Amino acid sequence: MTTSTALLVADLTGVAVFAASGASAAVAKRLDLFGVVFVGVVAALGGGIFRDLVIDEVPPLAFADWRYAATAAVTAVAVFWLHPQLARLRTTVLVLDAAGLALFTVTGTLKALDAHVPAVGACMIGMLTAIGGGLGRDLLTGEIPVVLRREIYAVAALAGSIVVALLSAYRHANALWLTAAATLVFVLRVVSLRRQWSAPVATLRPPRTGTRGPRD
Amino acid sequence: MTTSTALLVADLTGVAVFAASGASAAVAKRLDLFGVVFVGVVAALGGGIFRDLVIDEVPPLAFADWRYAATAAVTAVAVFWLHPQLARLRTTVLVLDAAGLALFTVTGTLKALDAHVPAVGACMIGMLTAIGGGLGRDLLTGEIPVVLRREIYAVAALAGSIVVALLSAYRHANALWLTAAATLVFVLRVVSLRRQWSAPVATLRPPRTGTRGPRD
Amino acid sequence: MTTSTALLVADLTGVAVFAASGASAAVAKRLDLFGVVFVGVVAALGGGIFRDLVIDEVPPLAFADWRYAATAAVTAVAVFWLHPQLARLRTTVLVLDAAGLALFTVTGTLKALDAHVPAVGACMIGMLTAIGGGLGRDLLTGEIPVVLRREIYAVAALAGSIVVALLSAYRHANALWLTAAATLVFVLRVVSLRRQWSAPVATLRPPRTGTRGPRD
Repeated sequence: MTTSTALLVADLTGVAVFAASGASAAVAKRLDLFGVVFVGVVAALGGGIFRDLVIDEVPPLAFADWRYAATAAVTAVAVFWLHPQLARLRTTVLVLDAAGLALFTVTGTLKALDAHVPAVGACMIGMLTAIGGGLGRDLLTGEIPVVLRREIYAVAALAGSIVVALLSAYRHANALWLTAAATLVFVLRVVSLRRQWSAPVATLRPPRTGTRGPRD
Repeated sequence: MTTSTALLVADLTGVAVFAASGASAAVAKRLDLFGVVFVGVVAALGGGIFRDLVIDEVPPLAFADWRYAATAAVTAVAVFWLHPQLARLRTTVLVLDAAGLALFTVTGTLKALDAHVPAVGACMIGMLTAIGGGLGRDLLTGEIPVVLRREIYAVAALAGSIVVALLSAYRHANALWLTAAATLVFVLRVVSLRRQWSAPVATLRPPRTGTRGPRD
Repeated sequence: MTTSTALLVADLTGVAVFAASGASAAVAKRLDLFGVVFVGVVAALGGGIFRDLVIDEVPPLAFADWRYAATAAVTAVAVFWLHPQLARLRTTVLVLDAAGLALFTVTGTLKALDAHVPAVGACMIGMLTAIGGGLGRDLLTGEIPVVLRREIYAVAALAGSIVVALLSAYRHANALWLTAAATLVFVLRVVSLRRQWSAPVATLRPPRTGTRGPRD
C-alpha cells in the first residue's frame, strides 16, 4: 500500500466514523432521515473542507472526490436504520468521535505539512481538521461543543499533531509511527473521558453584577 | 439576454429574496435597523461566499461586485420600513426562502460545473449555496435551522441540482430548462410545507440514560 | 517603523485584545484552561482567517506566522491566571472588544485594498474581519452575538473602514490618519455603549399567529 493510498484509507475511515458520530447525535435528537444524513455529512466533511480551504486545495477533496460524500452519506443512512441495535447512543457518539479525532489529526497535519505550511500552523490545521466536524455537529444539534466540555479533547488532537510534525521533521513519518500517533490521540481522549480528566478551572470571586452565574 | 446576464439576474434575484427572508426573520425577532440589515445581508450573501471560496473564485463575487451587497442592503432596509404591510412574517420568510432556494440551487450548480468541479461535487456545492444563507440566518437569530426541520428542504435543492447537472451533461442547460429546474425546487419546497411532507424518523427505544429525551 | 511593521504591530495588538476578550468571556462561563485558550484563540484569529481566505492569502497568516497563534495563546493563558484582578469581566470584554474592533477594521480594510479588492468589497471585508472574532466567541459561549445587540457595533466598524478606503483613495493612508480612523471606531463604539445609542426598531403590530412574541 503506497503512502497516498494509506492516507486515503485513513481519511475515508475518519469520514465514516465522524459520519456515524454525527448521525447518532441526530438520531438522538429525533431528526428525520434527511436531517440525520445532513448532520452526518457535515460532521464527516466539515473539518476537511476547512483544511482544504486554508491549504488552498480547491475545490476541497470533499467536492472533488465523490467517494468522500458517498462514504459519509452511506454511513449516515446505515446508522439511521441500524441504530436501535446501538444501545447507548451518547457513548457511541463519543467513542466514534475519538476515533475520528485520531485519524483526522494525523491526515490533517500531514496534508498541511505537504502543502508547505510551517510546523506551528500545520499543527493548528491538523487540530482544527480533527475538531471541525464535531464542532459543526454540536452547533447544528444545539449541544455544548464537545471542544469546550471539561475533558481533554482539542489538546489530545494538538498533542497528536505535534508528534506528527516531529516525526515528519525527523523523517520517521511512516505508517507504523503514524498509527502510533493516531493511537495516542485515541487513547488520550478515551482515557480522559473514563477518568474524567480535566484542566483547571479559574477561581472566580462571586460576581456582584454584570457576569452570569451558574444559574443562568 | 446572454447566458451570463441571465445568470446575473437570477443570482441577484436570489440575493434579494434571501435578503428579504433574513430581514423578515430579524424584524420578527425585534432587532434594530442595523441588525435587520446584517441578518439580511448574511442570508443573501452567505451561501454565495461559501460557493466562491470552494470553487476558488476569490475575492468572492459578493465582495468583488458591489451590486450584490447593494441589492441585499437595499432590500433589507425596504423590508424594515415596509414590513407592517407584510401580515404574517413567518409565512413570508418561508416562501421567500423557497424562492431563494430555487434560484441559488440553479446558479450555484452551474457555477461549480463551470469551474470544472465533478458532477457529484457540483451538486453538493449547488445545494450548499442554496441552503447556506438560510443556515446563517437561523444560527444568528437562534432558530432551529430550517434544513433540520421536518419538511423537505435540502432534498429539494439536491433534486434541483441533480437536474441541472443532467441538463448540463446533455447540453440542455438553456434558460427554459433551467427555469423548469428552479420551478421544480420551489414547488417541491412549497408543497412539502403545505402538505407537511416529511422523511421518516428513526424509531428509538426509550433511552434509559445518557441520551436526551424530548423533555430537555 | 515601516508601514508593514506598523501593520504587523497593529494586527498583533488586535489579536491580543481579542484573545483577552474571548478568554474573559470564557472565564465568565466557567470554562477550563483549555476552553479559555480555545475561545481566546478563535476570537483572536477567526476574523483574520476569514479575511485571508476571501483575499486569497493562503495559508492564512494565522497559520503561516507562528507569532499570531503564540500571541493569542499567551494572552489567553495570562487572562486565565490574572482575571481575579479584573473586577468586572463583562465590562472588560466589551472594552477590549472595542479596541480589537478598531484595530482589525483598519488592518483588514488595508489588506483587502492591497489585494486589489474594489472599495465597497474592501469595506465589507474590513468590517467582517473586525466583527468575525467576536461573532465566533459569542456563538461558542452561547451569548447573543454582540453584532445583533442594540448598540452601534458593526456600523462603527463600517464607518471606520469607509474612512480608511477614502484615506487610501486620496493617498493619506499614513500612520497618523489611520490611527485617527481606529480611534474613531473605538470612540464610536464605547460612547454608544455608555449612552446606549441604538438604531430604530421596527414597529410591529401585535402578531396573531406564526410569529414569536417576546416571551419565547
